[in-house]
Amino acid sequence: MTDDAHTSRRAFLRGAGGVALGSAALAAGAARADDPLITDLDAQPWTQFLGDPVDAMPYGMPSEHEAHVVRRTVSWLTADATSSINFTPLHELEGIITPNGLCFERHHGGAAHIAPGDWRLMVNGLVGRQSVFTLADIMRFPRVTRTHFLECAANSGMEWRGAQLNGCQYTHGMIHNVMYTGVPLRLVLEEAGLKGAAAWVLAEGADAAGMTRSIPLDKCLDDCLIATHMNGERLRPEQGYPARLVVPGWEGNMWVKWLRRIEVGDHPWHHREETSKYTDLLADGTARRFTWEMDVKSVITSPSPQAPITHGRGPTVISGVAWSGRGRVAEVHVTTDGGVNWTKARIEGPSLDKSMHRFNHEFDWDGAPLLLQSRAIDTAGYVQPTKDALRAVRGVNSIYHNNAIQTWAVDSDGRAENVEIS
Amino acid sequence: MTDDAHTSRRAFLRGAGGVALGSAALAAGAARADDPLITDLDAQPWTQFLGDPVDAMPYGMPSEHEAHVVRRTVSWLTADATSSINFTPLHELEGIITPNGLCFERHHGGAAHIAPGDWRLMVNGLVGRQSVFTLADIMRFPRVTRTHFLECAANSGMEWRGAQLNGCQYTHGMIHNVMYTGVPLRLVLEEAGLKGAAAWVLAEGADAAGMTRSIPLDKCLDDCLIATHMNGERLRPEQGYPARLVVPGWEGNMWVKWLRRIEVGDHPWHHREETSKYTDLLADGTARRFTWEMDVKSVITSPSPQAPITHGRGPTVISGVAWSGRGRVAEVHVTTDGGVNWTKARIEGPSLDKSMHRFNHEFDWDGAPLLLQSRAIDTAGYVQPTKDALRAVRGVNSIYHNNAIQTWAVDSDGRAENVEIS
Repeated sequence: MTDDAHTSRRAFLRGAGGVALGSAALAAGAARADDPLITDLDAQPWTQFLGDPVDAMPYGMPSEHEAHVVRRTVSWLTADATSSINFTPLHELEGIITPNGLCFERHHGGAAHIAPGDWRLMVNGLVGRQSVFTLADIMRFPRVTRTHFLECAANSGMEWRGAQLNGCQYTHGMIHNVMYTGVPLRLVLEEAGLKGAAAWVLAEGADAAGMTRSIPLDKCLDDCLIATHMNGERLRPEQGYPARLVVPGWEGNMWVKWLRRIEVGDHPWHHREETSKYTDLLADGTARRFTWEMDVKSVITSPSPQAPITHGRGPTVISGVAWSGRGRVAEVHVTTDGGVNWTKARIEGPSLDKSMHRFNHEFDWDGAPLLLQSRAIDTAGYVQPTKDALRAVRGVNSIYHNNAIQTWAVDSDGRAENVEIS
Repeated sequence: MTDDAHTSRRAFLRGAGGVALGSAALAAGAARADDPLITDLDAQPWTQFLGDPVDAMPYGMPSEHEAHVVRRTVSWLTADATSSINFTPLHELEGIITPNGLCFERHHGGAAHIAPGDWRLMVNGLVGRQSVFTLADIMRFPRVTRTHFLECAANSGMEWRGAQLNGCQYTHGMIHNVMYTGVPLRLVLEEAGLKGAAAWVLAEGADAAGMTRSIPLDKCLDDCLIATHMNGERLRPEQGYPARLVVPGWEGNMWVKWLRRIEVGDHPWHHREETSKYTDLLADGTARRFTWEMDVKSVITSPSPQAPITHGRGPTVISGVAWSGRGRVAEVHVTTDGGVNWTKARIEGPSLDKSMHRFNHEFDWDGAPLLLQSRAIDTAGYVQPTKDALRAVRGVNSIYHNNAIQTWAVDSDGRAENVEIS
């Protein structure tokens, strides 16, 4: 390999939108010539003493240095922590998979704990055979594996009236993205035998809230799952162990956890969670109902308020996530000047249907203040709107379905803040 | 929707290779009419009392009912647990992602614990600028996200001389499959500037074993990563936190953990782990060397010895995993009669380059004993061999690179056993 070949690879790297590290990092490297972490073995005890044995932790945990990477809740949001929300630390994550231990929770009556042997699923209503399935029965149906995001309809809900919360864990953290394994709901409904008038399904949870939602039968037959596994292992208790509904692309409230009953009917049930809650009150006093699909959305996770730029000017990575309930994310654009100029970001990792996507964009920061935004476009052609455009149509009464563009103001020290610009 | 439409969907389901649940499960459903878990709320305390609040577990854990799903080690395999192996519980997992807490470990001097601020990566040898990078420096390079399996060259190594170990956690559990995020090694090498004679790289770990391996430069420039994240979060300590090498498709020993140095040279170093170890002694006394690529392989994870059939005859799911270091898995075939008849299984979930694949096959078990096998074919055209075919070429001296077909004998009670058939 010649030095010429090397030079042309560097040129290619720059040409492809990447930024090769310049003199900054290398100057730092030179300055580290006397660094004891390089020159002094005594400063590196891990090189001299045996580490942990393989039986130290049968189920492994993150490093003690990552103890700050946790789900967080806020005390003022709800009256009680058993009917509340915690938030995924999006600003600390990479790729598209949310680790199971960090998947946000929303409960209406606390997280139920059900032994797998005690779980039952009743299928009743407009079916040929009213049936009760055990978990062992469900595991005899053909299984599928699908990666989908689950977003709470109230994600970013505090931001309708202005920039409120400090950082993307709180503004956008009511979402997780998981590779689910489960049984298509279609197979279980067909096993029970659908009657001719069947048009809707009521999904009911076994938790203290007895969560119920009406779901159109067509959606149930299309892509809904009775999920038993997440990211390879069994569901976590707070995510509906031993079985939950997966309703791809639709608001998280419908993904009934601790699923215990599927009733088939010819009309929606108009229960609390689809009338009093999870409807969108418009400026004229009417409400949008059955607004199930989660619209195309994105957010820059780094830099962001809890993930500031700490390395000074020079090569800088912008990273974020994007998703749509209507398909895949086709493109994400990034601006560093509040929307004057937009650049297409790289979508990185698998691009899957109704799944979170990772985007990255590298640039050479000159140390001037930045107004960072991302804007996603999905494969159905929808474009993520500005806050003002969304408010013009929806007003500010609702807390649900805010998919507007997020702005982070970065100052010359690299600190980021949640702001709003017109 | 008419009952006719329903009937035709059932027919389609059967026609597509799926098996609709027959009378067995539904008879069980009828027998459950007096089940207190359906009729008596007092038998379902989780419906009547509030569950866990959202601040109960900032970093979540599996259900107490899954306490058996852990990495396991065996005491007799090595002299000391700091230089040993634990095994991923493949028989309990679904989909293709291995949860971070269940990723098998192999250490040569125990798992090192390094604070991120204390980590350094030196790049030296045939480079234009000998350099030292901090973790913050590495995070300024463009990042990519890739899903790859890591398999120990010794996986299934005890099986060369016959069926030895009880269950697929022990026979095949030295593997995990993870979505990594990291920086292409190519970018770091090009930043340091490769000299014309550069042809090999030595990767060195910072652990007490000072693990080193020689890697051809072409591989480093192709798809190797300096990984900082696994499945969305930072690497776990036992997986090389804060940074490890990812060498897609190649034996796990080369994926140097706690990476501290990259030396560029014009020849391989012939260190211990590529001469005394990780070479394959043939019957004639010569050894295969630099056998880096992991050959196409598969195993049925359920049913298997720790995952017996407990539901009796009728609809039964066969599930397993397959992978190849030479690309994607094109097809997996399954036999229930020891290889007389083979059926193509469904590959389920993403099919990604040098990643684990999930396959499923449903059949109607008549209760007769079974001889279960799976056979994978990769996109490079390689076919997973029988044990006898592999031994005819390689003999039985080596413990490495056994990718032979695995057989489970299932008796009429559904119990599975590791056996060998000719």
